[in-house]
Parts: sequence; structure tokens; C-alpha cells
Amino acid sequence: MEVMEVPADDVLLQRPWLPVSISGCQLLAKSWFGETAYRVLLTDMQGMWEERMDTADIQSRAQELNRRLRAPVKAFFSHLCEVVQPYLSGAAGRADREAQISLDRRDDGSVSLRLKSELEGLPFYWEFHCTPAPVALVCVQLVRPLLVMSRLLQRQVDQLGGLLVRKDAEIQDYRENGATLSRERLQTDAFVESMYREDFMAKTLPLLSSEHQDALGFDADLQQLYAAVVAHGNARKRKLSEEDDEPT
Amino acid sequence: MEVMEVPADDVLLQRPWLPVSISGCQLLAKSWFGETAYRVLLTDMQGMWEERMDTADIQSRAQELNRRLRAPVKAFFSHLCEVVQPYLSGAAGRADREAQISLDRRDDGSVSLRLKSELEGLPFYWEFHCTPAPVALVCVQLVRPLLVMSRLLQRQVDQLGGLLVRKDAEIQDYRENGATLSRERLQTDAFVESMYREDFMAKTLPLLSSEHQDALGFDADLQQLYAAVVAHGNARKRKLSEEDDEPT
Repeated sequence: MEVMEVPADDVLLQRPWLPVSISGCQLLAKSWFGETAYRVLLTDMQGMWEERMDTADIQSRAQELNRRLRAPVKAFFSHLCEVVQPYLSGAAGRADREAQISLDRRDDGSVSLRLKSELEGLPFYWEFHCTPAPVALVCVQLVRPLLVMSRLLQRQVDQLGGLLVRKDAEIQDYRENGATLSRERLQTDAFVESMYREDFMAKTLPLLSSEHQDALGFDADLQQLYAAVVAHGNARKRKLSEEDDEPT
Repeated sequence: MEVMEVPADDVLLQRPWLPVSISGCQLLAKSWFGETAYRVLLTDMQGMWEERMDTADIQSRAQELNRRLRAPVKAFFSHLCEVVQPYLSGAAGRADREAQISLDRRDDGSVSLRLKSELEGLPFYWEFHCTPAPVALVCVQLVRPLLVMSRLLQRQVDQLGGLLVRKDAEIQDYRENGATLSRERLQTDAFVESMYREDFMAKTLPLLSSEHQDALGFDADLQQLYAAVVAHGNARKRKLSEEDDEPT
């Protein structure tokens, strides 16, 4: 039997964090399913859990959970993917109605996802055993991308503030030359960065913590930014390693 | 001897992440020094390490490292604080010139800071033994604040984009009424959010990864935002727990 290698962290890094809601638990998930291998990463922003399984691991767990199972890994693995992927990609609405999924937090700090579905007329059971991820992985998958995202957004804020000041200079010049507005409601106040920031923080911080959060606050705009940041990071890493490979 | 309690995570959460450079290692540090207790938190954005020490721990390590030391904890602890704090607060320039500090990464995954100084004419040795921090602490101290920072900045970007569109409407109205500029260089281009964002990402992402990073990219603006976010989070937590305490 061909053993598929579970991919390097790079592949999982490129994946988006998708909102998952199972057994009343709000999580973000990343997953990768190969031919007969998978990786799952879960976080609730208070912890992170992962599971890496290759062909042999999958074979032996399937036997453990399904005594009467005789099918080769490939056969039931494609079924498993089909059943579980809607749950792990924030599309539980598209999930197989016959399938049941539940989430347990165990005393040993791990998180279990239990799945029951039907395969060729027989019940098929699966369990994902996600154990606490190391800090290094949390840094790669969340801390460093979030820091770069914050830096990018901070620069964007600075640039847009600069643009507003230039718009105000243009407006002032028109006004000084006696121009008037045809509709008064079009008139804007001059932008003063320090006042704007103070006012923004006072209003938005309380709002942010009180409002309902989709995807644990990791909304669509941030997802898009995250994708750009990790794609750039990986492209840069590849470029650097290609340069290393060149003869000097 | 009075035993000082090492403070709850809240106190350390309020502290800024300060850039530290020891033995060629770039780190960010948070620290809290009590009367005879301390907590130190270090990160290089790839891992995080911490040490929590109370009076008894400090007493016994001091004895171990300084056989001839007879001074009570309070006496040498204030000396230790004085010597080490400049290094841990990004102000190594203000450090005692006689003191020597070095950083070691150990095989067991921990990070040691070794300090040699002089106390009343005798050499005084100290070692900080920082062990890998749990993921939960990384989430509290970095992941969650960085996510809130990103959300805040994203909103600010959206708001400023909206303001720019309003400025453009005002400018257009002046122009349509025949207004002209006295200086052509004051004329600005209309702001188109999607084009701006695309152009910004294409230009700024490569720039961000190639330029020199102070404080591992955690610059002054982000520090300020971090402080506001964690202060708000703690104030909110206190408010919620006070409400819990009220009779219903």
C-alpha cells in the first residue's frame, strides 16, 4: 500500500480559517485531505488542537472503530471526506442529513470529533483525536500572520489619513477661491488624525466587544488579508530557498 | 518572611511588549517585578517562554548561585531589579556598565538569561530560567489582542475609505459649479477603494517583509493599540465580574 505523506506546514498555512459550530462550540478550523491522509487544525482562540494522520493510522483507527469493516482505506476514506468536509468548511448546511457529529473536550486537554454515518448500508464510525498544538504552530498559523495583518492595516490607516489631509487641502483651495456647494449636505469636516483616532477608539472598542461575532471575529475582510499575507510569506520562502539552491 | 503572591495574568496583560536584544537575539519581553517576586515573559514570535518566581524560589536560587550570599531577599532583590530592568525594558543603554547579561537557548526548549553584577563589592549572579509558555498564555497575550487590533484597524480602514468618498463628492460638486484650483498640484485623484486596496497590497506586502523590523514588527503605533485593547478587555472583565457579584 502506498503511504501518502502528510504535507508540510506550508500547505496548511495556505488554507483559510473556517468557522465551525459543533455541539454548541464555536471554533475555527483548517483542514487538508489527501488521498488517504489528512490534517486537521482547530482553535477557539483560547487553545489550538491538531491531528495528523497517514494511511496506516487511518487504517488502524477504522478497524478499531468499525470491527466489521473490510473495505480498503481508499474506499472508506473518500466516504469520510465527503461526510466530514461540510462540517469543517463552515458549510454544515450541505452536510449529509443522516450523519451525526459531536464534539467532546477531554480531561487530557484534547478535543474529539465523533462522526457516525452510513457506508453501504452499515454504520460507519470515525473519531478525530485533536491534541494540543505546540506553541510554534500557533505562532506560524496565527501570531505571525495576525501581526503582519495589523502592520499592513496600520499602514493603510496612515496612508488613508494622508490622502484625507490632501483632499482637505484641495477643498480649502476651492473655498478660498470663493467656490460654494450646490448642496450643503455635501460639506465635510476637516480630518484631524489625532481627534479622529481618539473618537474612533472610544466608540468602536466597546462596540466590538459587545456585538455578535461571526467566525470568532475573523471576518471575511480579515480572511482575505490573512490569505494574502500567508501566500506572500510562502512565495517569499520558496524564492529564498531557490536562491539558496543556485550555484554561487 | 512575608510571601508575595505572583500576580494574576491580568497584571502582565496590561504590560507592553518591549523590544529586547541580548546575545544577538531579538525578543519582545513583558515583565513584572513585585517586592520580592517577579514574572518574565519572552517571545521571538516563534515561541514564548515564561518564569514566575515568588520569595521562596528567589531565596533558594540566590543561595544556589551565590554561596557566600548572606543578605535577606529584600536586600538583593532590589539590586537585581535595578540591574535587570533596563535590559528587559528596551533601555539597555541605561544599564549598569559593570553588569554582564547573556542569553542561552537550552536543549530542553527553555531560554536562560544569565546576569553577573556586583553587590557590595562581591560578584552577584542571577539566572532567569524561562520555560515554554502554554498555548493558552500565547492566546491571551498575543493571539486575541492581535485579532482585536486587526478588527479595529480594518474598521478604521473602512471608515476612512467612506470619508474619502464623501470628500470626493464635495470636490466634484465644487468642480461641477465651475470652481478651479489656484495651484494644480493640489488636485487629487478620486478614491476607488478596490483599486486602492489592490495597489496597496501589491506595493506594501513586499516592502514589509524586506525592510528592517524594529521590535519584531511590533512598532509604536501597534503598541499603543495593543495597550488600548488589553486595557479595555480587562476593564470589561472587571465590570462583568462586579455585575456577577451584585445581588439579583
